[in-house]
Amino acid sequence: MKIQNDLFLRAARGEKTERPPVWLMRQAGRILPQYRALRASLSGFKELVETPELACEVTIQPIDELGVDAAIIFSDILVIPEAMGLTYEMIKGKGPFFPQTIKTQADVDRMVTGMNAASELQYVYDAVSLTKKELNGRVPLIGFSGAPWTIFSYMIEGQGSKTFSQAKKMLYQNPALSHQLLQKITDATIAYLKTKIKAGVDLVQIFDSKKGVLTRKQYETFALPYIAQICDAIDEVPKTVFAKGAYFVLDKVGSLDCNVVGLDWNMDIKQSRDILGHDKVVQGNLDPCQLYGNPDDIRATTLQMLKDFGGKHICNLGHGVYPDTPLDNVKVFVDTVKGFKY
Amino acid sequence: MKIQNDLFLRAARGEKTERPPVWLMRQAGRILPQYRALRASLSGFKELVETPELACEVTIQPIDELGVDAAIIFSDILVIPEAMGLTYEMIKGKGPFFPQTIKTQADVDRMVTGMNAASELQYVYDAVSLTKKELNGRVPLIGFSGAPWTIFSYMIEGQGSKTFSQAKKMLYQNPALSHQLLQKITDATIAYLKTKIKAGVDLVQIFDSKKGVLTRKQYETFALPYIAQICDAIDEVPKTVFAKGAYFVLDKVGSLDCNVVGLDWNMDIKQSRDILGHDKVVQGNLDPCQLYGNPDDIRATTLQMLKDFGGKHICNLGHGVYPDTPLDNVKVFVDTVKGFKY
Repeated sequence: MKIQNDLFLRAARGEKTERPPVWLMRQAGRILPQYRALRASLSGFKELVETPELACEVTIQPIDELGVDAAIIFSDILVIPEAMGLTYEMIKGKGPFFPQTIKTQADVDRMVTGMNAASELQYVYDAVSLTKKELNGRVPLIGFSGAPWTIFSYMIEGQGSKTFSQAKKMLYQNPALSHQLLQKITDATIAYLKTKIKAGVDLVQIFDSKKGVLTRKQYETFALPYIAQICDAIDEVPKTVFAKGAYFVLDKVGSLDCNVVGLDWNMDIKQSRDILGHDKVVQGNLDPCQLYGNPDDIRATTLQMLKDFGGKHICNLGHGVYPDTPLDNVKVFVDTVKGFKY
Repeated sequence: MKIQNDLFLRAARGEKTERPPVWLMRQAGRILPQYRALRASLSGFKELVETPELACEVTIQPIDELGVDAAIIFSDILVIPEAMGLTYEMIKGKGPFFPQTIKTQADVDRMVTGMNAASELQYVYDAVSLTKKELNGRVPLIGFSGAPWTIFSYMIEGQGSKTFSQAKKMLYQNPALSHQLLQKITDATIAYLKTKIKAGVDLVQIFDSKKGVLTRKQYETFALPYIAQICDAIDEVPKTVFAKGAYFVLDKVGSLDCNVVGLDWNMDIKQSRDILGHDKVVQGNLDPCQLYGNPDDIRATTLQMLKDFGGKHICNLGHGVYPDTPLDNVKVFVDTVKGFKY
């Protein structure tokens, strides 16, 4: 089906566009009253993720309400460890929790991988197909996965952590076992993304949210090669890699075979351009907290950012939008980008 | 009193030393069985902080057990907000919690500052005097404070946070009030550090652990000027500034009037030297998780780090030592440094 507003895909492919496309990480979520109303009627977060009709509904809400240039399928990066054999719960006010974690060789051996894991996630592919149908070509649909190191961290720690010291302990104490698990995660992720693409997503984004805890050497050993495998395996659609806190390895992220590099708000636009080269398409990077400010400041800061990027740019925040962000301020952000011309 | 092992102070002043001095952030703590035994007999963390005899005892434990080249007075950065008027609790498995937080102008007006705040912390000065007496000149004693932005974050959030989005919201929504509170924190901190120095500490370290959440512009507006005020006000003893996650503003940290810059483990040694200049003394920066590894790896990585720094270096981890680090591995780290010669 022809996509009517293909601005996002043209920008991702590096084509010259009349203005940058705009969308927000976590745009399908608590900033929208229609999301909160639906969520309140459900048993929990996972019901939303696992019911294609509901995932479809909340994926499309921000397209209707905000008029953004791309949709992102409502899901969670932790569906992959679950498909591999570790179920998770989403605990209110605390976040994800895995009752069982990976400790031994037997634990790693037990994990399912490749298509055997990916085939557990039919509800995601159904949500994608349904959303493509309901979107009816209005805007492209983004699919996503976590980066293998990020998924690995959760499978070892069992929950969020300030330091991820237990996951790093595994890297130091058992590098061979760590590589085995990372490879299994990678193989499951590739099969998952390929099936998602068959179901209809137009671009895939890989989220590496736990990069900042690794040393450069660990990143080069345990993180980069597995993201590279994913990038190399996917050639059906454009790819975005967003490595939060990766300032210190941005040169390495830039060397991946991906179309777009996400930047968080710590990253200086000029410095990032110098590191990545001026031809790389970048995505980001307004501080999500800027949207707590007054509308005039939001407009001025957004316009300055658009000018500083100056092209080869997909506009977004430098992180997911925070749940308590005033919806009117989100609209000021989106409308400012949509009113801009290069 | 003459300090017998003054290696740490000579290195901090930029003098050429025969080897780098070594100490560990959080060396007085759970890695030591004698600390855990004492802690188990007490009502809580704050009893240890607020009882000079006990604070003195745990401050000296790592000097006896590990043979490190400096002691750091056992305390907490959150004594400052408490002295200003916001009491905190230390909740097991959760960390610090402030029942009341700063929301309005009236809240800021109510905060005590300068010597009126600093004079609330007599127990710290008593702990310093007693520790100096008990150390009897064996090694220098470090005093410390949090950086104003870090303290501000806790006073607004009331607890730890992944994003510190509420503290940042205050910066965006009420910059004038934010500056008032930051100035009050700064004035209290300067009075506190000066009184600590009078009580006997030989160097002060400023911990800025919440830098990574700010944009560069916010850092320049709300963080740097207040650390600069502290550095400019203290000239009695050498000063160390440790700004975790500050890679993206390391040039700015390097421009402060301080003797030593702390580096976390994300920071590449060569890149940091290039940014800071080769005359600046730096402290750090082994990944604390490296101490989970085997002794041979710890020795090899530590030696490589010492060679890479090559001088003008105080050896430490890139963050506080984690509580579950094997004590024998900590000793391997310390002994490797003590056996090294430039």
